[in-house]
Amino acid sequence: MEQAASFRQVTIIGIGLIGSSIARALRRAEAAEKIVAADLSQEACTVVRDELGIVDVATTDIAASVRGSDLVILCVPVGALASIAEAIGPALESGAIVTDTGSVKHAAIEAIAPHLPDHAHFVPGHPVAGTEQSGPRAGFAELFEGRWWLMTPLSATDPQILARLSALWQSFGARVECMRPDHHDLALAITSHLPHLIAYTAVGTAAELEEDTRDDVIRFSAGGFRDFTRVAASDPAMWRDIFLNNRDSVLEILQRFTEDLSAMQRAIRRGDGEYLFDHFTRARGIRRAIIEAGQANYVYPKAEDAAATPHGEVPRSSAARASGRGSKA
Amino acid sequence: MEQAASFRQVTIIGIGLIGSSIARALRRAEAAEKIVAADLSQEACTVVRDELGIVDVATTDIAASVRGSDLVILCVPVGALASIAEAIGPALESGAIVTDTGSVKHAAIEAIAPHLPDHAHFVPGHPVAGTEQSGPRAGFAELFEGRWWLMTPLSATDPQILARLSALWQSFGARVECMRPDHHDLALAITSHLPHLIAYTAVGTAAELEEDTRDDVIRFSAGGFRDFTRVAASDPAMWRDIFLNNRDSVLEILQRFTEDLSAMQRAIRRGDGEYLFDHFTRARGIRRAIIEAGQANYVYPKAEDAAATPHGEVPRSSAARASGRGSKA
Repeated sequence: MEQAASFRQVTIIGIGLIGSSIARALRRAEAAEKIVAADLSQEACTVVRDELGIVDVATTDIAASVRGSDLVILCVPVGALASIAEAIGPALESGAIVTDTGSVKHAAIEAIAPHLPDHAHFVPGHPVAGTEQSGPRAGFAELFEGRWWLMTPLSATDPQILARLSALWQSFGARVECMRPDHHDLALAITSHLPHLIAYTAVGTAAELEEDTRDDVIRFSAGGFRDFTRVAASDPAMWRDIFLNNRDSVLEILQRFTEDLSAMQRAIRRGDGEYLFDHFTRARGIRRAIIEAGQANYVYPKAEDAAATPHGEVPRSSAARASGRGSKA
Repeated sequence: MEQAASFRQVTIIGIGLIGSSIARALRRAEAAEKIVAADLSQEACTVVRDELGIVDVATTDIAASVRGSDLVILCVPVGALASIAEAIGPALESGAIVTDTGSVKHAAIEAIAPHLPDHAHFVPGHPVAGTEQSGPRAGFAELFEGRWWLMTPLSATDPQILARLSALWQSFGARVECMRPDHHDLALAITSHLPHLIAYTAVGTAAELEEDTRDDVIRFSAGGFRDFTRVAASDPAMWRDIFLNNRDSVLEILQRFTEDLSAMQRAIRRGDGEYLFDHFTRARGIRRAIIEAGQANYVYPKAEDAAATPHGEVPRSSAARASGRGSKA
């Protein structure tokens, strides 16, 4: 395998679902000579090193874990990023690359950037992948296959560093795209954060129902509601941090959504079938656009192709080419 | 095959996703000597008879279609039930069984019952199954396997008729349960109608976004939002009728949901992480209950077992037995 995407030593801080999946994917892609895991939980360290055997070293000493690493990946909830960055800043190797996997980019950058030394290369990122499970045992190497890995590089980001990271994520099977942090946060507010908030809320509403109705809701939870409960089983700490750290975008989308929901409510109360039919028909159009976008979907290059991507050029998806929209690095 | 669940001639009125799936399931179970389809669309009639070959006769003459049938199944949107019932009432054979598949039971009963002659046996029902596709080509025989078929019998319903229909649905692989119509409508309002309304609304909200954000929503629609768009691709006429005909239950659930959503919104605005964490953690508990209910799930009998169920005894699920709750016939 071409070694363009490989690293001497990679430190993964926070070894839950995402972190442990990255460790597995690194192993599978043979992209790191040595993998170090750091986690405040001694149990998590023991699990990944001794039980799962997916890392070479595991430690609860966050600062020490980055020594000797040319790549450091922060996989902790957004609310924990600042203290982690502060701890590792002074210990980073000269020229080390630091990236994160936070679901909110504006807040992640504000939390991390001030604590890193000038010699380090910080490239914020977000793999749009996950399951409702959490913890190191829940991870798997295939988690990122066919999923988006969004990067929100800073204006100072070295294009060669960006290309090197892109190639790494592509060797995991991910599709890479660059965008501005605020744009990322607004798009994710509607595609991910609003659906999660709705699911948590609807499941909570059901929990407050009278007992016999609630029992039947649980028994007959086929269809939409069962999907809601699956989503609502996601890690509470991670999602709390997402809502607190993407507050403005979430509140803006939520405001629009509740206005639209009120209009639906009024149409139902008034028996306005025409309004409902028109809106339901229009929603079908969006579904069609997504299916069409799926057909025009980026076919991610195999690891060899990714490695062949010239440095200095961020790989662009075919969809971006087709629409004339490039990577905004 | 034991013939306890079989019929001489079955008429299916409305031959879309559900109706055509029932035709296929009847064929597979060898439960009807002859299958008649009736649909106002000549095209649908041609498709099911000539292209798909899943019925023996297909006609646009609704009234004539029920002559000679000992079972008539209404598979039209709830808003069309009254006019269909009025059309077939005078033409029904003496002692014919009439059932429907409407997603709302109180309104379905009010629409159908007044138009049927005293000699007919009306047993309202609702197979909790479907896809976001519609039309006769979208149907398949396995649609009902492992899914609930809820029946809301009237006080006058003959237990033998109820048992005969139960056995038929079980021969399709469905799990049968009886409940009161108003109870059905409230439970479905939260497990199915609210999720659909939310999905239609959220997709509409996305459609109104500024163009570049909307494009990214479509491209990066992984996760929660993609599920929403799938749900929002469901048949608009059917769903309009559901909301208009289950208005009270939907508005009640919607009111509770919007109150809970406002509380979430306030917590996000105030940065109340504790409130969010507590609510997200509680939602996990409901998920756990559903998984546990799934483990204790009813294993539906095979067709032979269903046929062996003594007449006069409505099959009860193991879950109902375990909780001491019987069928409310």
